[in-house]
Amino acid sequence: MSYDASNPFAKILRGELPCFKLFEDEQTLSFMDIMPQADGHCLIIPKEPAETILQLSEASMVACIRTTHRIAHAVQKAMNCGGIQLIQFNGAIAGQTVHHVHFHVIPRYEKTPLAIHAAQLGDMDKIKRQAEAIVAAL
Amino acid sequence: MSYDASNPFAKILRGELPCFKLFEDEQTLSFMDIMPQADGHCLIIPKEPAETILQLSEASMVACIRTTHRIAHAVQKAMNCGGIQLIQFNGAIAGQTVHHVHFHVIPRYEKTPLAIHAAQLGDMDKIKRQAEAIVAAL
Repeated sequence: MSYDASNPFAKILRGELPCFKLFEDEQTLSFMDIMPQADGHCLIIPKEPAETILQLSEASMVACIRTTHRIAHAVQKAMNCGGIQLIQFNGAIAGQTVHHVHFHVIPRYEKTPLAIHAAQLGDMDKIKRQAEAIVAAL
Repeated sequence: MSYDASNPFAKILRGELPCFKLFEDEQTLSFMDIMPQADGHCLIIPKEPAETILQLSEASMVACIRTTHRIAHAVQKAMNCGGIQLIQFNGAIAGQTVHHVHFHVIPRYEKTPLAIHAAQLGDMDKIKRQAEAIVAAL
């Protein structure tokens, strides 16, 4: 499939949609998921336009995992979670809902089941505070 | 937590347990998951002993994602799947069952739900044939 530049993450990259930004470098951007499956749910995307990792360059893949690793450390420190899931979906069949490559960093907590993926907008004030705590821990 | 070198993936790295090997380089090893959640379910591990990505060096993290990217391409070609999930769990709370860092590459197919994680041994002949097809596609 060809890349559709009207997807929400492409709009965030172009500054046409806002985000709670966590980190940015030449090749990647990280921000809060506003439909969080858990408190402190973060996303990492490449700036390279690619729908799945099968279209993504190795250089962008490596850049994404460097940023993901960095964000995971900050999330652990800021959220004091019991575990962390890294999840990355390719294709609608695999659960991909936004068609620009993205890595999820999802903190897990004792006795707290995950919310359903991409189902409901979170509390924006709460997400903003979590973003500030994660940025402070970077 | 400190690393427990008696885990099954440490044993595979030491040659004390067998595996259906897909790929190996200086820093990583890839092999079939023998409790597959879907046909063609692969694992990628670092040779560095680390329980979670929070203990893993950045160099090993990058090496893992390079191998994961390579395996994902081969899985797509060999299994002709409709989508691919990359999944990496840190901590028992997050669903980690083997306490050595590992990345899952899980193919998804139309109308085929995932089997439960780490629940049941697969058909070894079938897994062996899938491994041969994935190696041929590397």
